[in-house]
Amino acid sequence: MNQDKNIVVIGCGAGGGTSAQFARKTDRKAQITVFEKDKYSQYSKCGLPYVVSGRIQKFKDIIEFSEEWFKKANIDLLMETTVEQIDAKKQVIIAKKGKEIIEKPYSSLIIATGAKPSVPQIDGLYVNGLLVDGVNVLRTIEDGEKIHSFIKKDKNATIIGAGLIGLEMADSLHKKGMRVTVIEALPNILANTLDEDMSNYVHEEISKNISIFTNHLATKIKKKNGKIKFVTKKNNKTGEEEDIETDLLIISTGCKPEISLAKGIGCKIGKTGYIAVNEKSETSVENVYAVGDCTEYKDFITKKPLPIGLGSIVVRQAIAAGVNSTGGNYKLPDGVLQTRATVLFDLEISAVGPIVSLEGDTSVVTGKFNGSSLPEYFPGGKPITVKVFVDRETGCILAAQAVGYDAAQRINTFACAMLSGINIETLRKLETAYAPPLAPTLDAVTLVCDIVTIKMSRRQR
Amino acid sequence: MNQDKNIVVIGCGAGGGTSAQFARKTDRKAQITVFEKDKYSQYSKCGLPYVVSGRIQKFKDIIEFSEEWFKKANIDLLMETTVEQIDAKKQVIIAKKGKEIIEKPYSSLIIATGAKPSVPQIDGLYVNGLLVDGVNVLRTIEDGEKIHSFIKKDKNATIIGAGLIGLEMADSLHKKGMRVTVIEALPNILANTLDEDMSNYVHEEISKNISIFTNHLATKIKKKNGKIKFVTKKNNKTGEEEDIETDLLIISTGCKPEISLAKGIGCKIGKTGYIAVNEKSETSVENVYAVGDCTEYKDFITKKPLPIGLGSIVVRQAIAAGVNSTGGNYKLPDGVLQTRATVLFDLEISAVGPIVSLEGDTSVVTGKFNGSSLPEYFPGGKPITVKVFVDRETGCILAAQAVGYDAAQRINTFACAMLSGINIETLRKLETAYAPPLAPTLDAVTLVCDIVTIKMSRRQR
Repeated sequence: MNQDKNIVVIGCGAGGGTSAQFARKTDRKAQITVFEKDKYSQYSKCGLPYVVSGRIQKFKDIIEFSEEWFKKANIDLLMETTVEQIDAKKQVIIAKKGKEIIEKPYSSLIIATGAKPSVPQIDGLYVNGLLVDGVNVLRTIEDGEKIHSFIKKDKNATIIGAGLIGLEMADSLHKKGMRVTVIEALPNILANTLDEDMSNYVHEEISKNISIFTNHLATKIKKKNGKIKFVTKKNNKTGEEEDIETDLLIISTGCKPEISLAKGIGCKIGKTGYIAVNEKSETSVENVYAVGDCTEYKDFITKKPLPIGLGSIVVRQAIAAGVNSTGGNYKLPDGVLQTRATVLFDLEISAVGPIVSLEGDTSVVTGKFNGSSLPEYFPGGKPITVKVFVDRETGCILAAQAVGYDAAQRINTFACAMLSGINIETLRKLETAYAPPLAPTLDAVTLVCDIVTIKMSRRQR
Repeated sequence: MNQDKNIVVIGCGAGGGTSAQFARKTDRKAQITVFEKDKYSQYSKCGLPYVVSGRIQKFKDIIEFSEEWFKKANIDLLMETTVEQIDAKKQVIIAKKGKEIIEKPYSSLIIATGAKPSVPQIDGLYVNGLLVDGVNVLRTIEDGEKIHSFIKKDKNATIIGAGLIGLEMADSLHKKGMRVTVIEALPNILANTLDEDMSNYVHEEISKNISIFTNHLATKIKKKNGKIKFVTKKNNKTGEEEDIETDLLIISTGCKPEISLAKGIGCKIGKTGYIAVNEKSETSVENVYAVGDCTEYKDFITKKPLPIGLGSIVVRQAIAAGVNSTGGNYKLPDGVLQTRATVLFDLEISAVGPIVSLEGDTSVVTGKFNGSSLPEYFPGGKPITVKVFVDRETGCILAAQAVGYDAAQRINTFACAMLSGINIETLRKLETAYAPPLAPTLDAVTLVCDIVTIKMSRRQR
């Protein structure tokens, strides 16, 4: 039957674990083996900030699929086992568990090696090659546990990087009673999620709870008794420097992919420096797939390569890799929509599509609508702001961003519009669900489209 | 300039009022006159149950656009003025305000005469042509005010009709501390909103708070001191009768359209008995538009005529009529999606598309998914059930229904999928917004699609 199918997965994060699951769902008989170098099986990295905040009780709670689960699914999961080499000609991998060497042939190989934190150049950051006591990254359960030990009410925490995870951590530490400062090198927070305009709105709202310094670099760490005492922030523009007293520093400035194994067998590395994969999660090497944070795939709108950093994309790539590794034919759409979301200080934030920069670009029309989640006459309506970016020629939706109540589910509708290719003229006529306690007769989703069409007819931007 | 444009609107409900507003938005100079026979200008009929429940304080709070508002918009609103005749050849209407006769010529006429409650045959319902004391319908603010005077804690209320409004009233009266019974002639509650399966689920949930008798007719009213004392319910199948003690009876069994004026000038009346209109809200008579509860338009999926009873559709028809009456060219999609929603006893209910009956129909595949609004590991996830109906040949989505957290916004995504015509194979790959406190990596919206595609590949229904 399928006895010759021998699927090997490197990494048991969301990408690797989900790939193995979908390989098993598609093929009940294939041999499936997963190698994981660390000590925890598939867990939600995105859940880490919520264990820090205490909303999730224990770090172990974010383990989504236990070793037992994989066993029951008849998937061989080898923990604390590092794949050291791939022989793509013989289709064999060589792994090491302690001193034991394991050779494992494969018919399909799925590389899900993920990424590791990218740490910027900061004076005094390391002592003997280790981060100074009190300085942490957040990528793994171990990182989270370490951070946990530094959390103290009324103490100071500083976060470098105002991306999704940096700000989720800021929120979490603020909830634990810490005084939180965020340092961001770029002019805007959430630069990968929102455009400048929408970002400024969020900045203003969340600044009620934390201090944020955009256009600032962290340049220096000052210690006391071997522990961090100050971090020096430097204004990008003026060069002005200032010390911030801090008891806990978290570096959240993105990550770099683990691509050495893939590179070793000649997998094409894309322009972004990540493993290039196609709509079937295939690499350039035969029978070798790659998924997740170590890969790049194209953006649905721009068709330009993009490093994959969103859990929602990772699991979809993994479905494709899992199904295809067993001989299936699962194709992802022609690029990723980058549908994304978070909640910061009770403010829901969501977006889809690339960050559309408008500087001098007259081919794009934008519309922004500020309204309420409910009809005006109904008590308890919450603010919702939606912005949409539209191609002037085709009327197609390029991107949408929303901040406020039910932003994420509203963005899903725009994601569907983008995936289907309908234009703004059609979308504005969408019949949205209406009930006084739920939504107005005309929802922000279509009202923002009306604003765009009016601007298009007047040739405004 | 546009001085010859003279737009007359009959009725200042959601349909008429919104038509006038959009005529004004499109044409700043047109003369616009609205005739309203009652004493309140544009208000939300859908808001009535929430004034009854006390969630909205006063009946006047649901007036969305006051007489002053229309005045400021330079729209002549004549209150308590009844249009008695239309001369479609001369393009003139004749109205009566008290004893005054008003003649008004029009270049475009918009008929928004609405509907009135349809009251079933019940023995003893009327005294001297008036409903027995304690028996009410709910269509207007006056109706609501009357009901208000019968609300008393620990007293009994009975509602005939388990449609959206009937059950919203049941919820409202229960919130006011009344013991509520609902009598429904059909086998299922919410028969225009959900299929039997989903309806049964809601039935079970809300039965925790109220008594519901489906397959029952109300046959008789028994009075005491001129007031209602009992209503007799009769089992459709067994013929068994039983008296229910009741202090307040609300009849909520649909409505019949006010079409006499339209009929008088030869507007085509459709198969459903409502005024037939097209995608531009035009009737069959030149320069005469009709919108709202007095009209029928086709269903987007079946292309069969459908009486319009949803506020969300009414305002969209009104946008078309308003814009087109000034010489614009606004076309609605090729039918209505019937996107609809409500909240009953904190349970959110939403749907889009026709009620797909499956009896012996192998051309439709359905999928149902029961899940959580959040990832499993995240505390506070709420149940969400989504069902989707798909054409086996084309893979197109025919309908979707959802019950549970954020059901309405999830249904909007299906509405967009239906409007765009994408099939289930594309929709299942939609990248939905993910964040642990908001939604799982794979949302119910796409997971239910996976179930359908699996069934399609196995030729199951």
